[in-house]
Amino acid sequence: MILVNGVATGTVAATDRGLAYGDGVFRTLISIRGKPRWWTDQFRKLEQDCAALGIACPTEQALAHEVSRVTDPAIDEVVKIIVTRGSGARGYAPPQPASPSRIVMSAPIPDYPGEFRRGGIKVHLCRTRMASQPRLAGIKHLNRLENVLARAEWNDPSIPEGLMADDDGNIVGGIMTNLFLLEGGRIITPEIRRSGVAGVTRARIMAAAKDAGMICREEVVTQARLMEADEALLTNSVIGVWQIKECAGRNWKPGEQAGRMREWLDDERD
Amino acid sequence: MILVNGVATGTVAATDRGLAYGDGVFRTLISIRGKPRWWTDQFRKLEQDCAALGIACPTEQALAHEVSRVTDPAIDEVVKIIVTRGSGARGYAPPQPASPSRIVMSAPIPDYPGEFRRGGIKVHLCRTRMASQPRLAGIKHLNRLENVLARAEWNDPSIPEGLMADDDGNIVGGIMTNLFLLEGGRIITPEIRRSGVAGVTRARIMAAAKDAGMICREEVVTQARLMEADEALLTNSVIGVWQIKECAGRNWKPGEQAGRMREWLDDERD
Repeated sequence: MILVNGVATGTVAATDRGLAYGDGVFRTLISIRGKPRWWTDQFRKLEQDCAALGIACPTEQALAHEVSRVTDPAIDEVVKIIVTRGSGARGYAPPQPASPSRIVMSAPIPDYPGEFRRGGIKVHLCRTRMASQPRLAGIKHLNRLENVLARAEWNDPSIPEGLMADDDGNIVGGIMTNLFLLEGGRIITPEIRRSGVAGVTRARIMAAAKDAGMICREEVVTQARLMEADEALLTNSVIGVWQIKECAGRNWKPGEQAGRMREWLDDERD
Repeated sequence: MILVNGVATGTVAATDRGLAYGDGVFRTLISIRGKPRWWTDQFRKLEQDCAALGIACPTEQALAHEVSRVTDPAIDEVVKIIVTRGSGARGYAPPQPASPSRIVMSAPIPDYPGEFRRGGIKVHLCRTRMASQPRLAGIKHLNRLENVLARAEWNDPSIPEGLMADDDGNIVGGIMTNLFLLEGGRIITPEIRRSGVAGVTRARIMAAAKDAGMICREEVVTQARLMEADEALLTNSVIGVWQIKECAGRNWKPGEQAGRMREWLDDERD
């Protein structure tokens, strides 16, 4: 089911600024038998991202209610929430006042091969770069053409993800995931200052690493640094954690960090 | 009237990738009593932009027919055409095959004060920069959050446009226009290699300048170069030509280039 501003319609006004300009933000999360996972974190991030674009975020109550309407308490599903600045007259100037649109929908959990989780994944190193835009870095906004172009670079279903670099060639993360490296017992994740999305799963892993007494830092990750890492791992709210087993000719054996991170993520506390 | 895939519905599927990712392109043009101005140029540009994103462009015939359906032969209007990659399953990978969506709509011509055309305009120098992304430069795609953020920087209705610079501080153009400078009888326009939109009006002016025997070059335009120009002009398909009369403390007297460019644009040949 798809709710648009609370109505089970499945369609959005053709004049919505989300379509015209990508003027909005989104969240993708998992519903565990009708209960949205890490809901407080997910809503807070949505709220922050809306604020960064000057969009009035819908209330937590309204969204939670709509998530409960689109999800089935009998199964696990993926939930997507889009908030746009709403419809407006022609032109880039945000309408004053604006009436933001909210789109809430559910979908089956993607059926990835179990081997991705158990044995790790092969990843593609994308030619498409992430442009540097400090005003948008970290935000999960609707301007995602770079991700689309990067994902269109290969067509091999055994490769589920690609890594993207910034203008300087430093790795920012995956197309749909955040990256972590294990380096001599320390955890490193690319800093998200000029491009990329700072995901909720990334934030939870960083917090859990510190709680577990591990050093976890946001730093610049060159391609050489990636190649030298003891382990490299990709995370998001849907897949959890996948270890990278192969990238750009480098192979990694299964390590222990993926399992450790999954334990951290099993903490369902909000 | 709004046509979505030929149907007078006014709504688009909430799963359209134009909304999800800004995965599409658009055109804004003028209809003169039902006749779309510079139609061949507009369609060719749409076709090029679709090709650059790997989207199958609708046929010229289908779009021309839909433009004729949304426009009124008694009046002049603005027409907007959006082409997206269409709906798809969740995920960045473009669906194979895809069914592109076409959205065709008309709107009244904006009622700008006549003084903008006669006496020139004051422009805002935007703090929001255009990120460098060679894969998307020149294309009028739906990822326009930078333009939205730049346009939200001011609220003074006497200032109708802002200039945007790239990462290096070089001027790329206006938020909704292309920029031309007059320098000792030569015409300069910022090169569109790493960011910005290469508009149809810009291309027509460049071609007409050469036909008129004037030198017209695409070059790097620093802010200092803008300040030293004899005249600075902004163009797009809706406004035609506006001279800049004030920007960042510099004032220009009305010159002759705007009138010359308007004559060039009066050539309605396709």
